[in-house]
Amino acid sequence: MQFLSDNAAAVHPNVWRAMQAADDADLPYDGDRLSRALDDAFAQLFGREVAVLWAATGTAANCLALSTMVQPHGAVLCHREAHIEMDEGGAPGFFLHGAKLVLVEGDHAKVTPEAARAALEAIRDDVHQAQVHAVSITQASEYGCVYRPAELSRLDMELAPRGLRLHMDGARFANAVAHLLRPAAEVAGPVDALSFGCVKNGGMSAEAVVFFDPGLADVARYRRKRAGHLPSKGRFLAAQLLAMLEGDLWLHNAAAANAAAGEIGAAAGGRLLHPVEANEVFLQCTAPERAALRAQGFGFYDWGPEAARFVAAWDTREEDAKALARAVAAL
Amino acid sequence: MQFLSDNAAAVHPNVWRAMQAADDADLPYDGDRLSRALDDAFAQLFGREVAVLWAATGTAANCLALSTMVQPHGAVLCHREAHIEMDEGGAPGFFLHGAKLVLVEGDHAKVTPEAARAALEAIRDDVHQAQVHAVSITQASEYGCVYRPAELSRLDMELAPRGLRLHMDGARFANAVAHLLRPAAEVAGPVDALSFGCVKNGGMSAEAVVFFDPGLADVARYRRKRAGHLPSKGRFLAAQLLAMLEGDLWLHNAAAANAAAGEIGAAAGGRLLHPVEANEVFLQCTAPERAALRAQGFGFYDWGPEAARFVAAWDTREEDAKALARAVAAL
Amino acid sequence: MQFLSDNAAAVHPNVWRAMQAADDADLPYDGDRLSRALDDAFAQLFGREVAVLWAATGTAANCLALSTMVQPHGAVLCHREAHIEMDEGGAPGFFLHGAKLVLVEGDHAKVTPEAARAALEAIRDDVHQAQVHAVSITQASEYGCVYRPAELSRLDMELAPRGLRLHMDGARFANAVAHLLRPAAEVAGPVDALSFGCVKNGGMSAEAVVFFDPGLADVARYRRKRAGHLPSKGRFLAAQLLAMLEGDLWLHNAAAANAAAGEIGAAAGGRLLHPVEANEVFLQCTAPERAALRAQGFGFYDWGPEAARFVAAWDTREEDAKALARAVAAL
Amino acid sequence: MQFLSDNAAAVHPNVWRAMQAADDADLPYDGDRLSRALDDAFAQLFGREVAVLWAATGTAANCLALSTMVQPHGAVLCHREAHIEMDEGGAPGFFLHGAKLVLVEGDHAKVTPEAARAALEAIRDDVHQAQVHAVSITQASEYGCVYRPAELSRLDMELAPRGLRLHMDGARFANAVAHLLRPAAEVAGPVDALSFGCVKNGGMSAEAVVFFDPGLADVARYRRKRAGHLPSKGRFLAAQLLAMLEGDLWLHNAAAANAAAGEIGAAAGGRLLHPVEANEVFLQCTAPERAALRAQGFGFYDWGPEAARFVAAWDTREEDAKALARAVAAL
Repeated sequence: MQFLSDNAAAVHPNVWRAMQAADDADLPYDGDRLSRALDDAFAQLFGREVAVLWAATGTAANCLALSTMVQPHGAVLCHREAHIEMDEGGAPGFFLHGAKLVLVEGDHAKVTPEAARAALEAIRDDVHQAQVHAVSITQASEYGCVYRPAELSRLDMELAPRGLRLHMDGARFANAVAHLLRPAAEVAGPVDALSFGCVKNGGMSAEAVVFFDPGLADVARYRRKRAGHLPSKGRFLAAQLLAMLEGDLWLHNAAAANAAAGEIGAAAGGRLLHPVEANEVFLQCTAPERAALRAQGFGFYDWGPEAARFVAAWDTREEDAKALARAVAAL
Repeated sequence: MQFLSDNAAAVHPNVWRAMQAADDADLPYDGDRLSRALDDAFAQLFGREVAVLWAATGTAANCLALSTMVQPHGAVLCHREAHIEMDEGGAPGFFLHGAKLVLVEGDHAKVTPEAARAALEAIRDDVHQAQVHAVSITQASEYGCVYRPAELSRLDMELAPRGLRLHMDGARFANAVAHLLRPAAEVAGPVDALSFGCVKNGGMSAEAVVFFDPGLADVARYRRKRAGHLPSKGRFLAAQLLAMLEGDLWLHNAAAANAAAGEIGAAAGGRLLHPVEANEVFLQCTAPERAALRAQGFGFYDWGPEAARFVAAWDTREEDAKALARAVAAL
Repeated sequence: MQFLSDNAAAVHPNVWRAMQAADDADLPYDGDRLSRALDDAFAQLFGREVAVLWAATGTAANCLALSTMVQPHGAVLCHREAHIEMDEGGAPGFFLHGAKLVLVEGDHAKVTPEAARAALEAIRDDVHQAQVHAVSITQASEYGCVYRPAELSRLDMELAPRGLRLHMDGARFANAVAHLLRPAAEVAGPVDALSFGCVKNGGMSAEAVVFFDPGLADVARYRRKRAGHLPSKGRFLAAQLLAMLEGDLWLHNAAAANAAAGEIGAAAGGRLLHPVEANEVFLQCTAPERAALRAQGFGFYDWGPEAARFVAAWDTREEDAKALARAVAAL
Repeated sequence: MQFLSDNAAAVHPNVWRAMQAADDADLPYDGDRLSRALDDAFAQLFGREVAVLWAATGTAANCLALSTMVQPHGAVLCHREAHIEMDEGGAPGFFLHGAKLVLVEGDHAKVTPEAARAALEAIRDDVHQAQVHAVSITQASEYGCVYRPAELSRLDMELAPRGLRLHMDGARFANAVAHLLRPAAEVAGPVDALSFGCVKNGGMSAEAVVFFDPGLADVARYRRKRAGHLPSKGRFLAAQLLAMLEGDLWLHNAAAANAAAGEIGAAAGGRLLHPVEANEVFLQCTAPERAALRAQGFGFYDWGPEAARFVAAWDTREEDAKALARAVAAL
């Protein structure tokens, strides 16, 4: 019973079907009819004009988006636990040509307006320190927590007057929307570009970068090719994204994963380190307790010496989640 | 009847099957059992130890390979028509951090030892000019022509004493092997790294970078992640490559494409601009002649004002190739 | 009798004096009163508002200027013999983060509108080829030839409608102005930024980057610091530049160098490979002839197997120039 | 009475004299006899073979040195207050092509073996996190504190087994040597490259990068040119460095600055935030106290809301230092 991560979960049958239906040769790269349908499909989701590019990984999606907002001599402000800082092998340094990451602290891996302001004001306004050009936040956060629309507005009030761009790493954006039950546009808030995750949510190899400022997308298209991220059979990536949007599969999948995580979280009582608002559960948990759980067949990651992380996926079986919930309650 | 390119052809059924068989969750990234099987599978093909990484595109494969051989202050020598110069949107400049491409001329888009020597000797041996660290050649070349093992040896005799690395862009390496009917190791020759193409040959989204010096692969692994080219479900890329090797599918597919191209080439007579040694045919062809062919339903690219390029793929139908051959003969 | 280059000539006494007068401690970096006086001094020279940054070398000046005009995924169009291509050790690749140089041919190392247009039109307007963002020309050119104002206007008519920026490498701008005897603004023409040379013309270690679009200068200031080109005692660089402008020292020095070169050129007759319009003379000259000149004590560079280059500097002694002229005439 | 910084102090008369003596034209770049004398001069100082390059700024010296040790996909470990992190405008990101800085805490801005080990062990040994390739320390530190030879040995015992390179930012190396009164080689310890400062110590525009591994210098020469840091009249930089070594001027100047700082520090009593081991004094000091000092004519920087920094230079007048000491004691 696997709770290691959602990142290697199976591919949803609808995604498989859509990919196979795309096998007929069509124009290469992003010239095929599926790739050309993405802008409209996402415009409908967000209720406004957008320009959408597919990308093969979340790292590529995040860094391509940021590369349109941040000059090489600038910086990105993000949380100290952000994926771009912790888990992308220095990809921002590569895609942004050495631009800096300015790190802030914050509960539940969320960037607050106060923390952002303090960090921005600590940077001397001279050429001896890299100036922040954009802020990147993660929705849901690295600890499975969700920014409310009001939080996003407050953050925007801090950033917009400074002329800063806002990027959202939405590797688990679907889980945030499924949790808040608000329109996607509200959950994205005032961002300039959103990395819309699909791989962790039943896809195979496609994420979407949704640009709310189409001018940025024009730059991103060149950057994507230049980064080797323009496969000739791009139709198979577009097919995955369209299949996810079709009939709100993305939301159903995310809701299933959230429900499984919620089941486990509800059994955890005071052990919970973060509220369970998406599909991740972080528990205080001693080494012997973790050993006990593993002995019962549960797979998961240690999170430092005194905690464990459990991740549910779209295909986590209900009985597995219930079994884990019982085991956690019985610790 | 499509002869535009092989780059958007359909995916071979065996590849589809292998991908579906890989759907079971496994370790993420390249930790799955299929990815871990690649070194051995390719070692068997080349008869020596190799380290193999998958990559999603030929551009990524080429540039990752070169990034292990060329320092940012160095240069790559290649043909003026090389894909890395003409069609990768400046990706070498990105992956190699501004290293230079030194361009040489040569018939059939092939780099000769003489041309390489002349270019190398024209570079002043001082810090005011970027020094060449590696040479990149394309097998089969951008004009569908093949380096013989003896040509590769002669090139190596020019490069090795200078301490230069050799990279081979093998987007159509299969077609070269199918043409020469020699062991893969001989067709690769003394290269340090080979981009082994699969997408143009019945794959969906996987190329292999074969490192004959495993130390280079260790660097490439970091560079790959840093470039956003390490998808979490890497097993689907590995599955494609293994399916291509299985039962020599790669060779059968390439042979089919070569045969179709050969059919067309044989009908072309004196119009041929380059010998047909792979799956591409370049014909001298006026605008009215091209219009006539298009009127008969043939799709292809103009190649400047007086020529046309026809590319056969693994799934080009024999009757289509014959029809085109007849039409060409009748011009 | 040294005619190797003007790049290591002595420092003019006025420049020494100005530097010594700047020794009093002042604010560091570019905050001192001399650095702050540059904008006005150059505004007076060019008859319009400009923003001026000093830089220690021509390479730094050129590349900092271009870095404000060219995105990493773009390209610079320049002559095949341009200093940025031939003699800067790949610095444009470094400062522009891998942007490409697109090379054109042209007599006397000058870029013509026709050559520029042909090269621009040969670039496919898609993401697979790097697009040109700026053009760089050299005034006087690498062969000591000068663009007339009308030539610059014609070039501008080709570039402006395409939205391309124009940079001028003016390592020998003074020599061009001294030759044309036109106002500096006309000799610069419609450029966005000019590298205004001083080191070859009696300075020690300061060039000026003159931005005619002050917005570019704001970016350049960050890039300059980031490239380690913001010395704390910047006042000594500013002092050199102000000394050069004072009493038109820059023009007097350049006129002296031009006159010496003119003397030699006038004696060269049909041997001249390029008109002598600045301080460089390129002569057809066999190996024995070169040996004969060297035997008479003249120092100079071979320029390929059949030519020689002679460069006069601000401090070339009249008798030396005359002696060389006689020796050349006597060949 | 200026105690703002040592970075804009006057140039020592011996340095001026040496520069003027270098005015005779010689070979350009680093081919002149002075530049060629540097290796020997520094070899004598350090008692072993070294390869020495001049550079115009400390930022350039630090980053060129590091660029020979750290691959773009790697990282540098340094103190959170290190100059390369705080005051170089992101230059390491530029020169190292996006390599990361891994920051550690530590008293007096010094890196301890324990802090280094903790940070190194916190980095997962996989491709998802940038791996540290080198460590950079500052001697004397950003708070004017000095690493003892035994501290350097202990640090080396932590780093060497991991194969990590060690760089020393010695912008105030002279002050450290003057404080410890030990041979330069012991004060440098087991470093691979040392940025040997001169500008803050009576120079005008030259720092030395001393490579104890000559192989690194060979790379640095290309990187220096590529960064626009190879002026054609390099003899003037070499002259400054040789003048500083001549008769131990560097040590005399540093000793004078240290003595002035020591005078002030001795008067500061319990206000001292860091021991005074070089030429900087950091004092606890309220806003009214700072105002009082300024009213008496002392110039200095605030260091946060409750502290002040005073820096003495080689040319700080003894009476000024004594006056400040009295004023501090009287607070």
